[in-house]
Amino acid sequence: MRDGPLQHLIQMFSSLPGLGNRSARRIVLFLLRERAKVMVPLAQMMLRVAEEVKTCDVCGNLDMVQPCAVCQDVKRARNEICVVAQVSDLWAIERTGSFRGQYHVLGGLLSALDGIGPGQLNIASLLPRVQDESVQEVILALSATVDGQSTAHYIADQLADQASNHPVDITHLAHGVPVGGELDYLDDGTITTALRSRT
Amino acid sequence: MRDGPLQHLIQMFSSLPGLGNRSARRIVLFLLRERAKVMVPLAQMMLRVAEEVKTCDVCGNLDMVQPCAVCQDVKRARNEICVVAQVSDLWAIERTGSFRGQYHVLGGLLSALDGIGPGQLNIASLLPRVQDESVQEVILALSATVDGQSTAHYIADQLADQASNHPVDITHLAHGVPVGGELDYLDDGTITTALRSRT
Repeated sequence: MRDGPLQHLIQMFSSLPGLGNRSARRIVLFLLRERAKVMVPLAQMMLRVAEEVKTCDVCGNLDMVQPCAVCQDVKRARNEICVVAQVSDLWAIERTGSFRGQYHVLGGLLSALDGIGPGQLNIASLLPRVQDESVQEVILALSATVDGQSTAHYIADQLADQASNHPVDITHLAHGVPVGGELDYLDDGTITTALRSRT
Repeated sequence: MRDGPLQHLIQMFSSLPGLGNRSARRIVLFLLRERAKVMVPLAQMMLRVAEEVKTCDVCGNLDMVQPCAVCQDVKRARNEICVVAQVSDLWAIERTGSFRGQYHVLGGLLSALDGIGPGQLNIASLLPRVQDESVQEVILALSATVDGQSTAHYIADQLADQASNHPVDITHLAHGVPVGGELDYLDDGTITTALRSRT
């Protein structure tokens, strides 16, 4: 068994985020028991997705169609563009069902520490999108971290510099107490912000 | 994105043991970022293992060769057979490196509750193996649960009933305090057993 393909498969699973040796072994044993019902269909679906998935030319989302289903959806509003760092953030907002506009996925955040500059992010393609007359608002839905906020500043600056033929609002996500969150467990910064922005 | 192959892939991952929606999304996003380096090789390895893995005719272990690498290993002792419930138990014992004999994987435990009888387990094939004159000991390495102990009793009875041409010892795993375990957190039964079997 040692060093065989089975052991190799367990190692590959254990390298996935959130999985260790123990959980990888458990998953592989489960897959071996359900070879026809789970293991083969899952592997085939992985190959299919790996081959067909595309980065949307318009917004940077990952999808099986080009442009992505969100950009293609004629029922979605064209006047708002929500800028997010990662596809996972887009998915998180989509799950809420509370936003029906367009997205723009940066593919990361500016980071002096990790040496990530504007050239490595999907920022340049945002500017011409905002030039479109239908766009009235750009929502910078970036993390409340140093990298997230400096990225938001950089994009806001870029949009302000660009000679625009029509007014565009630049907005940020509200800061405050998470819904269902207990005050006791919140950091001071969040409480201070929530107090200042009280409604 | 909704109901597409991507969403389907996340659902498939979330059905694996130990994974939920959130961890499945995290894994799929990681795979999408590492398509060539992780996703495709992992899927191909899954297909290869699913196709080539076999249940060993001798011991019931899962391996890519028939009989399995443990049964084929001429350096391993032939005088001991360690009976385990699952392949995962065999792997656990192999990881310790403290057993160099043969195995016999039952594929489960007798369970009145789950309606699992001797016919559904890999017990019948154990008896002729023990008839082999080289076998001197059968180690019943089964869980210290009701099902584990009733299975151990059943197998011990079967082996005793079988007219044997040579003496075979039937042994059980020792019960006691886990190595590194704190007395404080142990149940009464384990402490009582550990006291009684003190060495």
